[in-house]
Amino acid sequence: MNFCSHCGAPVSLRIPVGDSLPRHVCDRCGTVHYQNPKLVIGALPEWQDRILLCRRAIEPRYGFWTLPAGFMENAETTAEAAARETLEEACARVEIGDLFSLINVPHISQVHLVYRARLIDLEFAPGAETLEVALFAEKDIPWDAIAFRSIAMTLQYFYGDRRSGGYRLHVGDVVVGTRTPPE
Amino acid sequence: MNFCSHCGAPVSLRIPVGDSLPRHVCDRCGTVHYQNPKLVIGALPEWQDRILLCRRAIEPRYGFWTLPAGFMENAETTAEAAARETLEEACARVEIGDLFSLINVPHISQVHLVYRARLIDLEFAPGAETLEVALFAEKDIPWDAIAFRSIAMTLQYFYGDRRSGGYRLHVGDVVVGTRTPPE
Repeated sequence: MNFCSHCGAPVSLRIPVGDSLPRHVCDRCGTVHYQNPKLVIGALPEWQDRILLCRRAIEPRYGFWTLPAGFMENAETTAEAAARETLEEACARVEIGDLFSLINVPHISQVHLVYRARLIDLEFAPGAETLEVALFAEKDIPWDAIAFRSIAMTLQYFYGDRRSGGYRLHVGDVVVGTRTPPE
Repeated sequence: MNFCSHCGAPVSLRIPVGDSLPRHVCDRCGTVHYQNPKLVIGALPEWQDRILLCRRAIEPRYGFWTLPAGFMENAETTAEAAARETLEEACARVEIGDLFSLINVPHISQVHLVYRARLIDLEFAPGAETLEVALFAEKDIPWDAIAFRSIAMTLQYFYGDRRSGGYRLHVGDVVVGTRTPPE
């Protein structure tokens, strides 16, 4: 961030009075531009004993497999975001179920939520950001080609719960290297 | 948003190629400025059969009671945010427990998360944005003076669960008026 999105003047990185962290503050109008983590929301769509995965047609991780997921938009709910992303990426209609995983990814300031979901029919197809959509049984999951650690963690939680006979919310963190929490 | 925070030129609201929603796009450098929901994260600190509430020293809802909560910061986890907000607003140290509520507030593009928490000691005090901090038994909760609907919902979930003997995650939406989900 170099310029104020309100008035167009240059911004400086400094700690506003009464605050504790550096912010981008406008040198002219004084607007403080906060930057906050983003929510990435997805679904884990089931059909009988198989789940739906998408192969990415965009970077990062072009060609790798993932659950349908993406950035939450303004004015929607988390469940609406999960259904919308599934429709956009896999052209698939789902009935959204329980929230299943919340995974913090602090090194990129993201929080990833995944909902369980039930595919309503088998009419799915690749969306604009997807190369391929397919249903996988557990033995066929391409573990070495999963795009993101939060997605691999979520799939591991899912199959663990399925074996134990009960699904519950899982909360986890993706930790890169050693990490000291911010002040 | 009037100007590009990257290059300082004016922005226009239009739908980028391949996108489906209007975004602020820079007329000069082409940067697309996405706007996404914000996470507000709090704690429900318990001490024996009482819970800690803060009376707000800032708008909105100056003078009303709330749980310690605030905007999640970059580079932290959701549990770290809950502990930090409790320290900032109530000068209180807590052990963070399970995620207890996730409440969508789509008309202001926010998602509110509250964690259960255990007060470590009774050394609490008002932070800079707080007039007063106090412990309340259920019969003393100032239901008519709770600052936000998501907080009132969370407290109702909490006392409902306490009566039923088991705590679980609650997911809810604050709906204002009648509402059609966005496309």
